[in-house]
Amino acid sequence: MSDYRYPYKDVLFSLNQAGISDRLNDFLEEPLTVDLVEAILTESAKLSEQVIAPLNWSGDQEGARLESGDVYEAKGFKDAFSAYVEGGWPSLDGHVDHGGQGLPSTLATAVNEGIQSANLAFSLCPLLSSGAIEALERYGSPSLKNTFLSKLVSGEWTGTMNLTEPNAGSDLAAISAKAVPEGEHFLIQGQKIFITWGDHQMSDNIIHLVLARLPDAPEGVKGISLFLVPKYLVAESGELGARNDVCVASLEHKMGIHASPTCVMAFGENYGAVGYLVGEPNQGLKAMFAMMNNARQGVGLQGLAIAERAYQQATDYAKERKQGYDAARKNRVAIIEHPDVKRMLLTMKALIDASRALIYTAAVENDVSKLANGAEASAASARTALYTPVVKGWITEIAQEVTSLAVQVHGGMGFIEETGVAQHARDARILPIYEGTNGIQAIDLIGRKLQGDNGIALSRLIDEIISDVGLSKSKYAEQVKTETVFFQQTTDLCLSSMKEDPLLGTYHAYAYMMQFGYVVGAWLMLKAEDQMNENSEFDDLRSASIEFYCRQILPRARMYGDMITAGTSTVDSAVFFDK
Amino acid sequence: MSDYRYPYKDVLFSLNQAGISDRLNDFLEEPLTVDLVEAILTESAKLSEQVIAPLNWSGDQEGARLESGDVYEAKGFKDAFSAYVEGGWPSLDGHVDHGGQGLPSTLATAVNEGIQSANLAFSLCPLLSSGAIEALERYGSPSLKNTFLSKLVSGEWTGTMNLTEPNAGSDLAAISAKAVPEGEHFLIQGQKIFITWGDHQMSDNIIHLVLARLPDAPEGVKGISLFLVPKYLVAESGELGARNDVCVASLEHKMGIHASPTCVMAFGENYGAVGYLVGEPNQGLKAMFAMMNNARQGVGLQGLAIAERAYQQATDYAKERKQGYDAARKNRVAIIEHPDVKRMLLTMKALIDASRALIYTAAVENDVSKLANGAEASAASARTALYTPVVKGWITEIAQEVTSLAVQVHGGMGFIEETGVAQHARDARILPIYEGTNGIQAIDLIGRKLQGDNGIALSRLIDEIISDVGLSKSKYAEQVKTETVFFQQTTDLCLSSMKEDPLLGTYHAYAYMMQFGYVVGAWLMLKAEDQMNENSEFDDLRSASIEFYCRQILPRARMYGDMITAGTSTVDSAVFFDK
Repeated sequence: MSDYRYPYKDVLFSLNQAGISDRLNDFLEEPLTVDLVEAILTESAKLSEQVIAPLNWSGDQEGARLESGDVYEAKGFKDAFSAYVEGGWPSLDGHVDHGGQGLPSTLATAVNEGIQSANLAFSLCPLLSSGAIEALERYGSPSLKNTFLSKLVSGEWTGTMNLTEPNAGSDLAAISAKAVPEGEHFLIQGQKIFITWGDHQMSDNIIHLVLARLPDAPEGVKGISLFLVPKYLVAESGELGARNDVCVASLEHKMGIHASPTCVMAFGENYGAVGYLVGEPNQGLKAMFAMMNNARQGVGLQGLAIAERAYQQATDYAKERKQGYDAARKNRVAIIEHPDVKRMLLTMKALIDASRALIYTAAVENDVSKLANGAEASAASARTALYTPVVKGWITEIAQEVTSLAVQVHGGMGFIEETGVAQHARDARILPIYEGTNGIQAIDLIGRKLQGDNGIALSRLIDEIISDVGLSKSKYAEQVKTETVFFQQTTDLCLSSMKEDPLLGTYHAYAYMMQFGYVVGAWLMLKAEDQMNENSEFDDLRSASIEFYCRQILPRARMYGDMITAGTSTVDSAVFFDK
Repeated sequence: MSDYRYPYKDVLFSLNQAGISDRLNDFLEEPLTVDLVEAILTESAKLSEQVIAPLNWSGDQEGARLESGDVYEAKGFKDAFSAYVEGGWPSLDGHVDHGGQGLPSTLATAVNEGIQSANLAFSLCPLLSSGAIEALERYGSPSLKNTFLSKLVSGEWTGTMNLTEPNAGSDLAAISAKAVPEGEHFLIQGQKIFITWGDHQMSDNIIHLVLARLPDAPEGVKGISLFLVPKYLVAESGELGARNDVCVASLEHKMGIHASPTCVMAFGENYGAVGYLVGEPNQGLKAMFAMMNNARQGVGLQGLAIAERAYQQATDYAKERKQGYDAARKNRVAIIEHPDVKRMLLTMKALIDASRALIYTAAVENDVSKLANGAEASAASARTALYTPVVKGWITEIAQEVTSLAVQVHGGMGFIEETGVAQHARDARILPIYEGTNGIQAIDLIGRKLQGDNGIALSRLIDEIISDVGLSKSKYAEQVKTETVFFQQTTDLCLSSMKEDPLLGTYHAYAYMMQFGYVVGAWLMLKAEDQMNENSEFDDLRSASIEFYCRQILPRARMYGDMITAGTSTVDSAVFFDK
């Protein structure tokens, strides 16, 4: 099993391309210096590479276990989590009011890439915490913030998201957990499933954010409220009190991310779990989306991270493993010399480079949307809204392909668990599912994000691409322009057909999301090439990856567009039932 | 977990489309009647559905175990295997000289589809046996045939293929196992890895076919011979004698097919394993290809089979699982009503229908190549040679997509092992790897099969497609013609570029194989439509699947062709090494 190496050069390249300093420094009291960024990445890389990565395989083998109601994480995880907290990593982009370091989230994204590559299962715990922090910062009352935020920001406590119920998955309208007022708090009752890191021993307290219904709440999504339910009650002094009426009913046996305990949570089985309202009554969905959007970008990042890890392992193997001969049939060669293996590695690398470019571009937009004001902020908000489903949906699909190719490069050894590469494919398989399936992402993109603002934000993006492509000196500029124009056409087609029938959009939502990803990926690859030329920074692998993307990957954008153009009949589901 | 149902109607449809009676009956002493085919499929379906399928999930959980040198298969497997043997299923297409029933292999393929869908791990044991039978029938001496064939044909004994060594995977030239003559037999020494069903308790004897080198054999593939090495020595009377010097050193822990023991085999650790030469000295590769070609079509069939099983499970779930509302937002609906879910199910169904059409078309060609004489036989042989890598490569890639979509349709439940659908995805992941990776299949197609006969067999196929499409009344005929003409162009491009540099072909081999698959799939879907219209046999689901294939799947053929047209620079592997 090869060691993980933080892809320092690639991350810095993408951070610069995304404009981490150019676009963010105007808003920061203390501008980001190259030295600071480099120092942070170097230090966090040590943690990822040396502390967290070595627990990835053992964590998969051991998994988490439930004993007398308590969940115990795999060996070494608690110490690693302590190192993570003691290093101050959870608080990097936390608000200074709550003990955070107030750095841009983009920088935290770069740190998280390493942690996620190192150990996807481990990284889910902080990912969920940061969703909870986001929701509390935006919607929590001063008193709730006061009691809970600083401990969450520091990482001393962790957070969870409790949305799903057996009957309510993608369909949150069906949520049935109840919240009954009792003095200043509420008593929560109900079962939640698929709760990631719902219990563990790595932190002193766990703060559950739970969707539930108040008595007499309207039906459907308009009657859902968000509650904060701590594992241990907290006195005003901050001291931990009695255990709340929340327990883990069982752990799931999953295809992957074995070390991440996925819990069935029982709230209020005895007297009712004490919870506090976050935000306004019946406005829980809004707060939930604050958590979700954060988590969705985070899941896209996981897709990139696991793809990078799998790619590293495949490349290492391909350099070592000797099979077959050189073209002259004289010398035995490593399999990396064989064109079909190079094809697989370049496919992986090109997809990773494009994904990373999008990840950091979206992260910077997200930061600008929070740091800037007025028109600049709303433009960045609109762009972030557009990117989020693509970051989640497109990149997690890419993660399936890249981790599967990594298995394939290993041949028979790829199927043997001890090799470790199959774990990446198993772990990655959750990514298109959780935090909103990719089908939901696609519908979010084509419905809420495209049709919702009548295509304005999308038009602006296309204009920007066309303008950049016009200035580009790349030999692929014309081709990228052609595909962008085609994307404009399918966008118009989708918008006009949805005017007739909103359902028509959902038939092609997935293809549209994928076409979006591949076109935006091409644009960013072109910008990367221009950036390299400007700085005379020449990297043979990246050049090969850009060329490969434009020649061998970009035809996918055409294909998805062709699918939309070809259309589909509305199919009656009756055809699937036996007659 | 849903029950497996043998897709009787679909199999019959594809058998008829492939011409199981029209093309084969002329050659058979007793023509196949509809009644006979139906009786065989109905009876074998019972075995698959009721005996073998129920062991799929439990077999995955339990796996096989090694105890004091013996491998014990999962519970229930031995009884199921006995039922399979007692039903006479292994001998269906065996030669009558060796106790077989002499039926066409196409019929055995239809039976095997059910067994493989029911339980991929189980089905591997007979699959490997039939490869061994094929090699023995073609290359075994009369005495070897006499001693071993009838027991293998009946299924009382099983067979294995021992090719791979730690140092020799795709690269068989590197094989180092040794065979030293000793009287009339040889003593075999060496280690073989990844030996499927290398040991078990389901049969009285296990017949290993082993590649090894004679003393003073030439280097490389020209110095490899094939040996038969039984687990128990067999006296001339047929009685079992002493245990041979073959043992299982260890079992692999794999991502999937847990119930299929994958063994590290140690031959001749003590005195040398007694083996018998099969075929001529140093001609082992030829015999090996006889096993391999059989197994390669079999692995393609596994791809179809696991896809079918996953599709059934996803469809069942989609019909039951309620989430979200109908278009009027009034009634809660099963998720099968949602367009994005229909898209996934139709993608699966269209890919399965096209794969099944190809499987049985290739099976009939294979039978004709053996039953016919002269020009008819050689045309069928050439066509079979062309189909084999596509059956293996294209369909096992499709199996990845279909099993992954089946997980996706299940949402969060898909990632939970108890749901059972993740197992299909894990099991399917071996298919693009074993019996020659899909990269090897692609190179076989573009090198040996296309360039090897200067494109003649391929031209004939394209002529046939163009002619059929010209006669078709389908509204998609023009589109299929366009894609076929484009495929002709990329074929010419590949042939001419390989004349310059044979390596250039291997860069695009994979895309070429995939384009081949999707174009041939479209042709067969069109023929299916014509067949339905002729017989006024109208099936709404198949109509939807044909339309979906032409509109939503066929753009992939264009994409792969675009990739070949776009070309790739020859990339120096040095770019992957850090500077």
